[in-house]
Amino acid sequence: MDVISVIRAKRDRIPLTDAQIDWTVDAYTRGAVADEQMSALAMAILLNGMDRREIARWTAAMIASGERLDFSSLARPTADKHSTGGVGDKITLPLAPLVAACGAAVPQLSGRGLGHTGGTLDKLESIPGWRASLSNAELLDVLASTGAVICAAGDGLAPADKKLYALRDVTGTVEAIPLIASSIMSKKIAEGTGSLVLDVKCGTGAFMKTVEDARELAETMVSLGTDHGVKTVALLTGMSTPLGLTAGNALEVRESVEVLAGGGPADVVELTLALARDMLEAAGIHDADPAKKLADGSAMDVWRRMISAQGGDPDAPLPTARHTHTVTAPATGVLSRLDAYDVGVAAWRLGAGRARKEDPVQAAAGIELHAKPGDTVTEGAPLLTLHTDTDERFAGALDALGSAWDIAAPGTTVDTPPIVLDRIA
Amino acid sequence: MDVISVIRAKRDRIPLTDAQIDWTVDAYTRGAVADEQMSALAMAILLNGMDRREIARWTAAMIASGERLDFSSLARPTADKHSTGGVGDKITLPLAPLVAACGAAVPQLSGRGLGHTGGTLDKLESIPGWRASLSNAELLDVLASTGAVICAAGDGLAPADKKLYALRDVTGTVEAIPLIASSIMSKKIAEGTGSLVLDVKCGTGAFMKTVEDARELAETMVSLGTDHGVKTVALLTGMSTPLGLTAGNALEVRESVEVLAGGGPADVVELTLALARDMLEAAGIHDADPAKKLADGSAMDVWRRMISAQGGDPDAPLPTARHTHTVTAPATGVLSRLDAYDVGVAAWRLGAGRARKEDPVQAAAGIELHAKPGDTVTEGAPLLTLHTDTDERFAGALDALGSAWDIAAPGTTVDTPPIVLDRIA
Repeated sequence: MDVISVIRAKRDRIPLTDAQIDWTVDAYTRGAVADEQMSALAMAILLNGMDRREIARWTAAMIASGERLDFSSLARPTADKHSTGGVGDKITLPLAPLVAACGAAVPQLSGRGLGHTGGTLDKLESIPGWRASLSNAELLDVLASTGAVICAAGDGLAPADKKLYALRDVTGTVEAIPLIASSIMSKKIAEGTGSLVLDVKCGTGAFMKTVEDARELAETMVSLGTDHGVKTVALLTGMSTPLGLTAGNALEVRESVEVLAGGGPADVVELTLALARDMLEAAGIHDADPAKKLADGSAMDVWRRMISAQGGDPDAPLPTARHTHTVTAPATGVLSRLDAYDVGVAAWRLGAGRARKEDPVQAAAGIELHAKPGDTVTEGAPLLTLHTDTDERFAGALDALGSAWDIAAPGTTVDTPPIVLDRIA
Repeated sequence: MDVISVIRAKRDRIPLTDAQIDWTVDAYTRGAVADEQMSALAMAILLNGMDRREIARWTAAMIASGERLDFSSLARPTADKHSTGGVGDKITLPLAPLVAACGAAVPQLSGRGLGHTGGTLDKLESIPGWRASLSNAELLDVLASTGAVICAAGDGLAPADKKLYALRDVTGTVEAIPLIASSIMSKKIAEGTGSLVLDVKCGTGAFMKTVEDARELAETMVSLGTDHGVKTVALLTGMSTPLGLTAGNALEVRESVEVLAGGGPADVVELTLALARDMLEAAGIHDADPAKKLADGSAMDVWRRMISAQGGDPDAPLPTARHTHTVTAPATGVLSRLDAYDVGVAAWRLGAGRARKEDPVQAAAGIELHAKPGDTVTEGAPLLTLHTDTDERFAGALDALGSAWDIAAPGTTVDTPPIVLDRIA
């Protein structure tokens, strides 16, 4: 077996054999296939695609590259959620403790933000003392004692995917459905969850810009999960406007705590409940009412225990930015569009995200929205507030926001699409 | 400017701008663009193509990455030839001294073999004492004193191409017309020749398998040369059967010397003369008769001086292989097919070629043909003789030859296509 013949096959639209896939993923993990060979193959996969059998085998080979966790010792059924990434997408923060409060165990192995999309671990690290890295034993301990854990995936889980993910990020090969699907699903299957709900986002702020692409990705992942014995459901959700009223790390933690306290923006609450209901159904828990668990404070209790178990102080004040800048509405009318991608890029430039994996993030940086599409705005009143510790970043952020919104004449009716566009099971 | 946006543009079929091309080639040469990024871009170029403007700019950027030679001090017009590579293609060896004997200066910067195609430098290195590496000053000296020089291209010439060529070889991105054309032409234009004849091969033993692909490559290269002020002509020539009766290093030198002595196989003589006539015409030399210069020994005189000037002994015996194995005809009839690719692979496996750039080659290894398509063969009489210093290589070579030939019933008329299929100017 040699990698050049594998690259040539995919380049020439010949489906890869099971043996070619197994060998390539293993050889890349061992370093016998070089980065420059894998990136050429990744580009050929992006442009020429993979059929369902190839994607399934590629996923299985990535799972086989590392260890698998085992949650069979837990008394509760396990349920996990994965989002393909968006702007203001803090849903994991209220969702994991909420679903745990309803009786499931929620092992939420999460990632960091890259580019304009935020990362769950970056958000939680704005809580003083909180640790993202846990050993497998610690992870199981927190999960068993609190019902939920949000932490970094260990190095032993799907190491082929870790290496390939970092490579794709610097070689323009992120946006390939076979590679996105196998990356997400290899981690989730190796993690050992019994059920999984996928939040597949589409719109300007998502990797998938169209519903068609999002649907294809969702269907691919649902069939991968099902084939591996994981009960898997996907929701297609809109990501053309930021979720909630904040984008940024500490800002999103604050908003999440509002939701756990029974308040928070309607869209965040709606999506949290929709995902919670599907996670519970997939986990076989039919007698819990997640709306009630938000209202009665039980989800908040789990949150506090979960944060404390990982060294965080749920009562400590969150960091605030040294500098803020408020953008006011240039006219009176109805906000008809507020672009998720532009807001995401602006928050990133303010310091909430990173350009390279090694970069630090600013806990307090980000953007607060004072209006969402459909809301009436008044000339001169605040539209957005920008937060950063480094005020030379305002210029770049304002530049990104240059055409981020439209204001329609007063009284205009603005159609706001539902959050959940479709469900694939 | 960042390379990921360049990769994404080509991936998404957006033509690259001049600024993107200039920056990418320069940054890759400097090491600011990594190999894994360039290989992803190369795969995107292979699959999505480049338009003529992009190819011209890419070529110009590769020329600009290094130095250019200057032959303006020579009294004679310069003429060079490039072959896209084939099996048994020793034409450069008799051609360069022949064209020099007719009055042109022939600066033939050549390469080594890789894969199943042989390399001119490997062939000449089978002559005891002969040196492939010359300084620019030595190159000019040999050229001025003998009229011809065949040597390795210096490291200063198109360094971007050197780096990219090595990368393409290990990443399945060799067979891209924009990259092949720009690679060949950047070296030839930087070399500073005034005229150039391209021998673009097509058939089983060539990189271009079809006449259509060969024509597209030829037209691309002719327009690149013309745009840079090099008088450029291309011949499309057949490469489905090996050229001449030998494939291998010393074996091909021996056959070349036969041609220079006025003998040699008809197809080698025919192609040598066809290329010589076009080189002379392109160089503006209209009064020389290359057939006469072969017959009267003047081409042989230049050969001897040229080999001596680079340290070689033209009278030294050539190395012979420690082991030979003769394959006999399994039936009496007419040889109707002898596949160039299979013979090339067999010669390679016998030790005439290398699998990796670092590998040594065996000077004496290779294959002698005792018949060519159209010839009558007799059951039990020799068809091929295999030469190698390492007899454990016979098995692999015989395996490659498993379906290399067909023998038709005695008396069958076999159509043998002409060597020169078309001419593009």
